[in-house]
Amino acid sequence: MGKQIRIGIVGYGNLGRGVEMAISQNPDMKLEAIFTRRDPESISASVKAYAIQDAELFRDQIDVMILCGGSATDLPEQGPYFARLFHTVDSFDTHALIPEYYEAVNKEASAAGKVSVISTGWDPGLFSLNRLLAQAILPEGKEYTFWGKGVSQGHSDAIRRVAGVKAGVQYTIPSQAAVERVRSGENPELSTREKHLRECFVVAEEGADQESIKQEIVSMPNYFADYDTVVHFISEEELRSNHSSMPHGGMVLRSGKTGANSTQLIEFGLKLDSNPEFTASVLVAYARAAYKLAAEGGNGAKTVFDIPFGLLSPKSPAELRKELL
Amino acid sequence: MGKQIRIGIVGYGNLGRGVEMAISQNPDMKLEAIFTRRDPESISASVKAYAIQDAELFRDQIDVMILCGGSATDLPEQGPYFARLFHTVDSFDTHALIPEYYEAVNKEASAAGKVSVISTGWDPGLFSLNRLLAQAILPEGKEYTFWGKGVSQGHSDAIRRVAGVKAGVQYTIPSQAAVERVRSGENPELSTREKHLRECFVVAEEGADQESIKQEIVSMPNYFADYDTVVHFISEEELRSNHSSMPHGGMVLRSGKTGANSTQLIEFGLKLDSNPEFTASVLVAYARAAYKLAAEGGNGAKTVFDIPFGLLSPKSPAELRKELL
Repeated sequence: MGKQIRIGIVGYGNLGRGVEMAISQNPDMKLEAIFTRRDPESISASVKAYAIQDAELFRDQIDVMILCGGSATDLPEQGPYFARLFHTVDSFDTHALIPEYYEAVNKEASAAGKVSVISTGWDPGLFSLNRLLAQAILPEGKEYTFWGKGVSQGHSDAIRRVAGVKAGVQYTIPSQAAVERVRSGENPELSTREKHLRECFVVAEEGADQESIKQEIVSMPNYFADYDTVVHFISEEELRSNHSSMPHGGMVLRSGKTGANSTQLIEFGLKLDSNPEFTASVLVAYARAAYKLAAEGGNGAKTVFDIPFGLLSPKSPAELRKELL
Repeated sequence: MGKQIRIGIVGYGNLGRGVEMAISQNPDMKLEAIFTRRDPESISASVKAYAIQDAELFRDQIDVMILCGGSATDLPEQGPYFARLFHTVDSFDTHALIPEYYEAVNKEASAAGKVSVISTGWDPGLFSLNRLLAQAILPEGKEYTFWGKGVSQGHSDAIRRVAGVKAGVQYTIPSQAAVERVRSGENPELSTREKHLRECFVVAEEGADQESIKQEIVSMPNYFADYDTVVHFISEEELRSNHSSMPHGGMVLRSGKTGANSTQLIEFGLKLDSNPEFTASVLVAYARAAYKLAAEGGNGAKTVFDIPFGLLSPKSPAELRKELL
């Protein structure tokens, strides 16, 4: 084995911790340091943590910086900043703003001769790849994305804003009946209500009116009104012990026609016990690709669409052809 | 839309006809000519057919040649030959010989400044891509491939060699119970018998002993002895009307662990009414990629592992980022 790829992590929340664990599964990589906006002394991790503004002192010690901040406020600033200093990977996931984010990162990465892989993870990321692949192979067809079963942070937050709610978690659940209709090749038109169910586990404040909480949740516009929503009231203990993990998943299906009216179905699915750990594992594989792309002389912002799968693997092209093709 | 990509087809069997139909679904491409070893006058197609040895006269009229011959005898000769003359795409699928085939094609394509995409389709091809992706993301895990439900040509041929058998078709069927065990995250060790069933539809010669045919089939080494095999005797009419299509499919699953013992499952599956039409659709998408790679200055033999998905699409990188990421 050659030299290990030296990784830095910016932001040490669930995703950053996931990246730390994923690196330990990949012997060709090494975690070098963590950078945080919090007090570095407060971070307990497998390597030393530093203040984020000290990151630039590590330009000779770190090959790829994995940016684990959020898309709302962290990455729009950190993406272009770190693209000047390091090869980077991030999971920027505000779909509508990706073109703008791409331009901002690309400008810095190109000027600095760095590679920045943006918007990877599973959606955007692996799901996007499968949408592209299936469209290219079956141009006459219809595409479906189902999410879940998994926790939606946005919907959980919405529950928690209802008066009388102390805590709560919302699961998005794909309708099995809808999935089966797609798999059958029927190419159904599916309404929002037909595709997903929403299941809420709510801890009410003492003395709160459960019926009115329930009504407020199920009729909430944008979040629940267009769905069949089930609300369960549970205790704080039950919420903590049964609903604190972060499962997620989903599937992308495309059903199309070829030739003499043959129905062809392509399906990609994920079933994840831990959403942040899985996203982290994807980021780490793309960190390897960023490193290899840079070694080949690449630079600028890249998305999953620009990166051959061969670069994700620690194996050589000849090994891959022999073992996996 | 710019200039259409001009495609030639070498070999006009099921796969070649599938390519012809797939091109008609892609407005950025145009079928220019078909090349055959048969009498060109005997070919009835949407474009004129020519003798295979006349192909070299079309060097200025054809951008990408799609090689639709078989892996046993056609491609080992045609792959390197056409790689000297055109950008090519093929579905060479003799797994053990891929490294050798790669070297032979790469030598010619590199010297001629051409791009040759080898061994694409769905296995090798899309299944290989998913094996690589899942391994790179979940290095600690276990991978499973199931094939079917679909017709296996090799096993159908084996049935037809049994004395007293007039005609027959064999379906490979994945065991649903085994698939569910994998999906559950159990990471089972599965024997050959546990993974797939084999179902045979046999037309016996008049007066042949069905019981002895059945025994000979189910006990046939390599083909059936290690499987649970069901044999049905049917009439020639029934075989023709119910078993003449070529469905296939299958799935690649990888179940792995990340971080704090979280089980993560990645699944890719195909359900195909027509195996040759689907394989043809994959070849056509990779023909577009070969053309784009060549336009970027690429050359030599390439596999699916070397080609970014963005090149499979008729859309521009900016459109893909905006619409599909």
